[in-house]
Amino acid sequence: MAIEVLIFGAGAVGAFYGSRLATAKNARVSAVCRSNYNAVRTNGFSVTSPKYGTYVWRPSNVFSTPLEARKSGIAWDYIVVSTKALPDVSDDSQLLEGLVGSPTAVVLIQNGLGVEEPYRKRFPHASILSGVTVVSAEQPRSGEIKHSRWTRISVGPYLPNNDAYSLSNENETATSRNLTFVNLLVAGGIQDASAYSHEKLQLVRWHKIAINAAFNPSSVLCGGPSNAVMANDPLFHEFLKGVMEEVLETGPKVIGQPFPSDFASSDLLLRSTQRDPTGGRPSMWADWEQGKILELEVILGNPIRLAQEKGLNMPRLQSLYALARMAQRMRIENSSKSKI
Amino acid sequence: MAIEVLIFGAGAVGAFYGSRLATAKNARVSAVCRSNYNAVRTNGFSVTSPKYGTYVWRPSNVFSTPLEARKSGIAWDYIVVSTKALPDVSDDSQLLEGLVGSPTAVVLIQNGLGVEEPYRKRFPHASILSGVTVVSAEQPRSGEIKHSRWTRISVGPYLPNNDAYSLSNENETATSRNLTFVNLLVAGGIQDASAYSHEKLQLVRWHKIAINAAFNPSSVLCGGPSNAVMANDPLFHEFLKGVMEEVLETGPKVIGQPFPSDFASSDLLLRSTQRDPTGGRPSMWADWEQGKILELEVILGNPIRLAQEKGLNMPRLQSLYALARMAQRMRIENSSKSKI
Repeated sequence: MAIEVLIFGAGAVGAFYGSRLATAKNARVSAVCRSNYNAVRTNGFSVTSPKYGTYVWRPSNVFSTPLEARKSGIAWDYIVVSTKALPDVSDDSQLLEGLVGSPTAVVLIQNGLGVEEPYRKRFPHASILSGVTVVSAEQPRSGEIKHSRWTRISVGPYLPNNDAYSLSNENETATSRNLTFVNLLVAGGIQDASAYSHEKLQLVRWHKIAINAAFNPSSVLCGGPSNAVMANDPLFHEFLKGVMEEVLETGPKVIGQPFPSDFASSDLLLRSTQRDPTGGRPSMWADWEQGKILELEVILGNPIRLAQEKGLNMPRLQSLYALARMAQRMRIENSSKSKI
Repeated sequence: MAIEVLIFGAGAVGAFYGSRLATAKNARVSAVCRSNYNAVRTNGFSVTSPKYGTYVWRPSNVFSTPLEARKSGIAWDYIVVSTKALPDVSDDSQLLEGLVGSPTAVVLIQNGLGVEEPYRKRFPHASILSGVTVVSAEQPRSGEIKHSRWTRISVGPYLPNNDAYSLSNENETATSRNLTFVNLLVAGGIQDASAYSHEKLQLVRWHKIAINAAFNPSSVLCGGPSNAVMANDPLFHEFLKGVMEEVLETGPKVIGQPFPSDFASSDLLLRSTQRDPTGGRPSMWADWEQGKILELEVILGNPIRLAQEKGLNMPRLQSLYALARMAQRMRIENSSKSKI
């Protein structure tokens, strides 16, 4: 029997991985499309990639809403959630009501910390898989996916209570579904997909926060400097390293495990950014320029709160959090004033 | 013999205090005026104040440059420096070359920390007096000074090496000149002018930094929220308190003395800001809106460096320093691009 996969949030990242999963022999991949529904319904996704060439992916089903996906009656094995994580704006987990059954694993491919909790609370008997990716992909027009660089993706079962003996069966199920999903990615040509343990995957999330928390809100607050400009300014370099170190020292204390020795140090991360010749700016700057709400809660708010639960303070992150939230508040207030 | 006072930097603050000193019986007060030279030369300063009424102050001499003041041949007893402190842009102490003789005390009425050092180095045998004021005054048009609130001013001799026995005579001279200057202010109707010791005056500077460092760069980074908006936002309140506490814990360690018990706590400062109904925004926001260079070095850079000399870190201040400097750099670069 085919493995049924539903992509929820078919933006660049979701559609790119969907298009790869669809090439695996035993997978049927459908998609919920919102703004790009008409284009994808008619022409599918056309994908260009330096690694995979140019091809068209027509999802097995294209749904315009989660309700349509529910009405299809398909029992989903995997629901891949690749929407932006904005818990302060909406709880996207409720959109999956009626789609998550006992065979379903919900795979969250999102930035930040704490993205799994709303899904775990709403679907306590589903397997929650947690995914972190480094991928450069964009959708310049509806249905056109441009993959540029990187395919790394790490996925692990989300098992925050895995010390509880009574849960071990559920844990085994989640771990096994996790492995199946990663194998499906590999079968779809994503060679550097990796299956991780709960703890190691959470450490990956913290490690990525070190980069995102340092560069993303800073670029917004400073009027859009590029990553390389920020990393090459001596005073700013000291600040970035301070933010990264704060995250890299806190994460292992919250998780209860040290970082694996092969995770890059703050110095290595900063050196590689200093040499970046592309002039690339953080994705949060792009969101800001387009007037979108920023992913501040999962990148700044949740790490700070998880640390506080362990009695740990993060003064640099808290500063960025307060400043970026206020900047966003001022912008919303000023824009609503200018509309009156 | 009259006491000869020269106001250098006759903006709102300098001109207001100059106009009060000039009412003391034995004082002759002159002024170096730059942008407002023609207006002041013709009409003097017209001052309005809820406390002192409306009056015109004609300085004993109005000079357009420090060189003119030098050519006057007057031996200055006090040179009051009330320019903006921008050591990263210019060393204003060099403008006083030739004006500072053995009877001269240089009175620095400026915000921030470390403003005295350039003067002490350039004029090692002059008395340096350090002044901090809380005063609300503006110069909406050249020569028109509008005083609104507060007249508090604290002045102390700047004696960073006052443990050295060999300096005791110079210290006595500075302390005596300091007292004379404060008495002159009181004679001019500034009842709450106070003469402080070196250490207590430096603690006043640190205390004021706690407020300025918290509110000023933050407003610039966040798009201009008022002081009350910042203090009333719960997340931002926590950040402001964190910045203030960082300064209030560091200052006494650098100076080697605790704050006097009557200095307001961070909670008290925040509560009074929360209740401020005026919608006032920090002066740094006004500078930013007018495209001026910000006083970042004396309000953020110098406190951080003085702390580092004692092995103390200020992560929140360093974050604000790096962010605000980068914001200023981006603005300068973008504005020069737009002119090309």
